[in-house]
Amino acid sequence: MLNKFKFVTAEEAASYVNDGDIVGFSGFTPAGCPKEVPTAIAKRAEAFHAEGKKFKIGMYTGASTGDSLDGALARANAIMFRTPYQSNKDLRSALNCEDAPYFDMHLSVLAQQLRFGFLPKPKFAVIEVCDITEDGILYPTTGVGISPTIAKLADYIILEWNHNHPKELRGLHDIYEPKDPPYREPFSLMKPSDRMGVPYIQVDPEKILCIVETNRDDEVKGFTPTDEVTDKIGHNVANFLANEIKQGRIPQEFLPIQSGVGNIANAVMASLGTNPDIPNFEMYTEVIQDAVIGLIKSGKIKFASGCSLTITTPVLKEIYENLEFFRDKLVLRPQEVSNSPELARRLGLITINTALEADIFGNVNSTHIMGTKMMNGIGGSGDFTRSAYISIFTTPSTAKGGKISSLVPMVTHVDQNEHSVHVIITEHGVADLRGKSPVQRAEAIIEHCVAPEYKQMLRDYLKLSGPCHTPTNLHACFGMHMQFMKSGNMLDTNWDDYTK
Amino acid sequence: MLNKFKFVTAEEAASYVNDGDIVGFSGFTPAGCPKEVPTAIAKRAEAFHAEGKKFKIGMYTGASTGDSLDGALARANAIMFRTPYQSNKDLRSALNCEDAPYFDMHLSVLAQQLRFGFLPKPKFAVIEVCDITEDGILYPTTGVGISPTIAKLADYIILEWNHNHPKELRGLHDIYEPKDPPYREPFSLMKPSDRMGVPYIQVDPEKILCIVETNRDDEVKGFTPTDEVTDKIGHNVANFLANEIKQGRIPQEFLPIQSGVGNIANAVMASLGTNPDIPNFEMYTEVIQDAVIGLIKSGKIKFASGCSLTITTPVLKEIYENLEFFRDKLVLRPQEVSNSPELARRLGLITINTALEADIFGNVNSTHIMGTKMMNGIGGSGDFTRSAYISIFTTPSTAKGGKISSLVPMVTHVDQNEHSVHVIITEHGVADLRGKSPVQRAEAIIEHCVAPEYKQMLRDYLKLSGPCHTPTNLHACFGMHMQFMKSGNMLDTNWDDYTK
Repeated sequence: MLNKFKFVTAEEAASYVNDGDIVGFSGFTPAGCPKEVPTAIAKRAEAFHAEGKKFKIGMYTGASTGDSLDGALARANAIMFRTPYQSNKDLRSALNCEDAPYFDMHLSVLAQQLRFGFLPKPKFAVIEVCDITEDGILYPTTGVGISPTIAKLADYIILEWNHNHPKELRGLHDIYEPKDPPYREPFSLMKPSDRMGVPYIQVDPEKILCIVETNRDDEVKGFTPTDEVTDKIGHNVANFLANEIKQGRIPQEFLPIQSGVGNIANAVMASLGTNPDIPNFEMYTEVIQDAVIGLIKSGKIKFASGCSLTITTPVLKEIYENLEFFRDKLVLRPQEVSNSPELARRLGLITINTALEADIFGNVNSTHIMGTKMMNGIGGSGDFTRSAYISIFTTPSTAKGGKISSLVPMVTHVDQNEHSVHVIITEHGVADLRGKSPVQRAEAIIEHCVAPEYKQMLRDYLKLSGPCHTPTNLHACFGMHMQFMKSGNMLDTNWDDYTK
Repeated sequence: MLNKFKFVTAEEAASYVNDGDIVGFSGFTPAGCPKEVPTAIAKRAEAFHAEGKKFKIGMYTGASTGDSLDGALARANAIMFRTPYQSNKDLRSALNCEDAPYFDMHLSVLAQQLRFGFLPKPKFAVIEVCDITEDGILYPTTGVGISPTIAKLADYIILEWNHNHPKELRGLHDIYEPKDPPYREPFSLMKPSDRMGVPYIQVDPEKILCIVETNRDDEVKGFTPTDEVTDKIGHNVANFLANEIKQGRIPQEFLPIQSGVGNIANAVMASLGTNPDIPNFEMYTEVIQDAVIGLIKSGKIKFASGCSLTITTPVLKEIYENLEFFRDKLVLRPQEVSNSPELARRLGLITINTALEADIFGNVNSTHIMGTKMMNGIGGSGDFTRSAYISIFTTPSTAKGGKISSLVPMVTHVDQNEHSVHVIITEHGVADLRGKSPVQRAEAIIEHCVAPEYKQMLRDYLKLSGPCHTPTNLHACFGMHMQFMKSGNMLDTNWDDYTK
């Protein structure tokens, strides 16, 4: 029945891709990313380079990917440009030594900027599917990302048909691609479980260049277990939200939760799951992690809408074995919809994301180490935070065994500014920044969030300026960072060094 | 017919307001703000202070106000707190010496944060109207702001009935207040001229404490004429947009324009108005200035949706004399709608706002002078920029006769970050930042936007870091600012001072 398509090896599929080509990949996080074709493209690049020939491609993905995509292509030095997000060790090294030009984007805008022509059009779309039909209907696997858009824009589509994912995934997805202005219509969702699209991606079958079959697992890593610090952060988040309900500032029926990725997010989900004052709730988020699946099973989470099932292999197997139970409790959407600011504000999301560092005035750095080195990217944090009902940032109060304070006089890169950050939570407590002036915010953060050994240092910093709206000292504002780079310990900071 | 209401002097109205009370005021910019009652409250405060008694009020407004509101209350030292925006000389002085705690907010979120209970409820709403009915229907004047929300939340309403505005303004307004999550519905506008509400504010007539009659003009100041620099900026904006249409990156039918306030904005409007390659267009903006009215008369602007008619008195008189011509070409909405990110993205706004300074990586400072002193506030720039189809920031390349470069290594306050800023335009040219890495953005900004005398200085700055994602030097990043504070001229900067 599918005889009209050409089934080929990954190497043959990769042979169509040449130096200077632009390729869009399916998936979001390692979930739903192609694995065979990108690795084969990386090998092809290495072969070219061995012959002294150039070979680099431009790369669009939904978000981060698996090692067989970003890792393989970074190690092959085959990246002409890369957007919008990454978390791969080797790619991170490449972009931080300017080997791979990287632009860090809000995830909700990539698809529309491709359609608008703001970014060069992809020649190829490489898309992982769990099923296809002869007339060009594609069923995605565990991550949607920008697949509908790259499938439409690309000249050629290369499919990775992953038989590891059951065809019964059909129906899990809600695919909607908006018209562009001035013809765009409202996104019609009124609650996380509503649907506004179709359960598949329709493409022109003539564009399907070839199909590579595979049965490789998603390259999703597990998280390290929660510890005392992350447990306390989770506990503080849950108690804060329970009190907001009690005070009438969050409705009794509660609101949908958006939660970031990682160990702190897992601890937060665990605390929300066990706190009796938190009602059963829904998720409207980008990444659905293992912890969410556990809470769906226990009934605490009623429904989860996301862009990907970023689930470890054993837990994913469990979902597949109980698909009928999960079918009406999960939906996967393109990131243009999962991360839509329109929907974040309408649904009234409670957003919980992690700060790399925050400053005492409420600005958050989500991306840059010491202002220079890209960690991962802003991801969806800006999409959600700016439009949240209430936006929360969590961080351990210190890093590197106490030698770095996560709360500093000025963040070395601003990804979320004071205007959008409502609450900062560490293991020590909660700073509620709503309705406070910069000076009042600094007092709240130092009092409630800063580690005891850094409180006096930050209070002293505030005295370095005369009266003003935001007490900033341009000589000293990065003094703690500069001290760390010099002696390896922010605690050695002496403000006298900056006020002579 | 209106006998049920109590008509009083401004002094009598003010006598209801006591120390510690929270007052919400109508209007947006000086347009539509009450004048008599706030001045009388300020006098009451001064009388209290003369007797050694405390008297301060909490203040909510739509945006900036007239001098008889912010100026009078600041001079009376009568401000307990103030949000979300201001532009008054005396209030600026007060908040910059910590006499008036001020929190700077995205204008679109104030009304909902009041309803959510995130900010303390106003006891009084003081609202300027052009007409009222016995059953509590209020017709606003030239600015809407947060009037529907404060009228609903306040215990008592004090009206300023301004007979200077004709009753025929009825019908100019489109008042819509959304339900709060989880019951919020889509904002239904599909184009700037659509309506989604009713042309009045309905209040409980029992809450109307008293009415003060007045016929004072709005305190809208004119702008200084455009000059060579602002003309060149306007020209560069218009040419850039015309080329985007030509390249197919903006649709042929063009898209609605949002434009900030001030002299540069006026020059931009003038250039858009005269450029033959810019089609006739619509505005979806917050502040409708004189220049817009001129372009409506000439037919270049087909329709303007805003939150206020911030129009000088002679031009406003002209509108009132030709209301039938303007009636189907103007609408005023609450700032929750005029500044809605949902609508900005759906309508596909081309947003044009002014930067106080920008850095070579594309971050914009809209608010803080030298990182410490508040100028006005972020206003609507963040609401529009983040959700724009394409976002443009304009700035003259230098200030203070060339002693300050508006393009610097790092902005001293980030209000719009690199993720949301697409294009920077000065009198020298256009830096298109879309799809560029931080290093590529720096090259584009230095090449196209920086004043000739600062180009080498900024190129040298980039060499102070080794290879990394964002070439930042934490010792030197504010070197140009620190030099200005020391010698009064950024041109004296010597990077050697920061690299020893």
